[in-house]
Amino acid sequence: MHETLSDAALDQLYREARSYNGWLDKPVSEEQVHQIYELAKMGPTSANQQSGRFVWCRSQESRERLAIHASEGNKDKIRAAPVCLIIGYDLDFHEQLPWLFPHTDAKSWFKDEDLRRENAKRNSALQGAYLMLAARALGLDCGPMSGFDQDGVTRDFFADQPRWRADWLCSIGHGDRSSIFGRSPRPDFGTFNTIV
Amino acid sequence: MHETLSDAALDQLYREARSYNGWLDKPVSEEQVHQIYELAKMGPTSANQQSGRFVWCRSQESRERLAIHASEGNKDKIRAAPVCLIIGYDLDFHEQLPWLFPHTDAKSWFKDEDLRRENAKRNSALQGAYLMLAARALGLDCGPMSGFDQDGVTRDFFADQPRWRADWLCSIGHGDRSSIFGRSPRPDFGTFNTIV
Repeated sequence: MHETLSDAALDQLYREARSYNGWLDKPVSEEQVHQIYELAKMGPTSANQQSGRFVWCRSQESRERLAIHASEGNKDKIRAAPVCLIIGYDLDFHEQLPWLFPHTDAKSWFKDEDLRRENAKRNSALQGAYLMLAARALGLDCGPMSGFDQDGVTRDFFADQPRWRADWLCSIGHGDRSSIFGRSPRPDFGTFNTIV
Repeated sequence: MHETLSDAALDQLYREARSYNGWLDKPVSEEQVHQIYELAKMGPTSANQQSGRFVWCRSQESRERLAIHASEGNKDKIRAAPVCLIIGYDLDFHEQLPWLFPHTDAKSWFKDEDLRRENAKRNSALQGAYLMLAARALGLDCGPMSGFDQDGVTRDFFADQPRWRADWLCSIGHGDRSSIFGRSPRPDFGTFNTIV
């Protein structure tokens, strides 16, 4: 039986966490990147498909290259971040299932290309959320973005992987509190929820 | 500047959390359902779109009704769970943006139906992950599932909302440790990650 996490932890993960537009001049180490992934990879994906594919743009050069594909409002957010993560997915993730889900023939469940695309996108999105909350759990901040040219980033960063696709981006670092605005309104429970 | 959460918290959220197939006979209260959502709704969605739509099947009757649409292997998991959550999305989430993202005309960004569907699915998946980790943070366990008839659940549970779609399911409760098997292998960092 587990306890509820402390209020400080719930604040850090959810209630006081924000999406940052600007970043303190404080790096994110390769070790921290590994720590984030080592936590996030434990999160559930359907048939342990682990369909997410991740490129962590940590050098100035890689972030400049990524910024080229971003909308005007996102270019500087990418350039200034210690790390900007590309969250992608593998349209042929099922090829990995014989070792990721070894106790049954799960690969055969995903013969249909549309089903595979749907799964690849849903589960890589879940993994991106696990990564963001893992980063927050480790004391870092996030700034997710979807304003960019997915095809351009796919061509540029997944050139050697013809079945991988870029889906969204997330800057990671120590957020600059002066870079954020008031929080957008959150719905009451009853607006989008029903208990039946 | 935030601290890293305690090892016990990281274990509870990620390292020792598992997807459960069976459940202890211990209810999840309506108050706990609200607590889960109140945390999860703080997580980021693109332009605060909050595209997820959630039906929490808490009564035996509703879970029986849901189980009808599930694959053979998932029917009993749904019937036996204290709560089974339907994670859906609203194809017309943009209609809500004037109040969810009030400082600019974000509704006009989502005129394209394909872009809207992609956003609705990606962001509701993120929200589902926030909900699962919030449940774990509150001491509960999860059992996500995608083996069911999405169209059937949409017709049955979103009948009054013609633009809402059921996407996946997640049982929530106090997991029965005798109901789980060994953990499926997790990839090393280098398998699906690159730092550039």
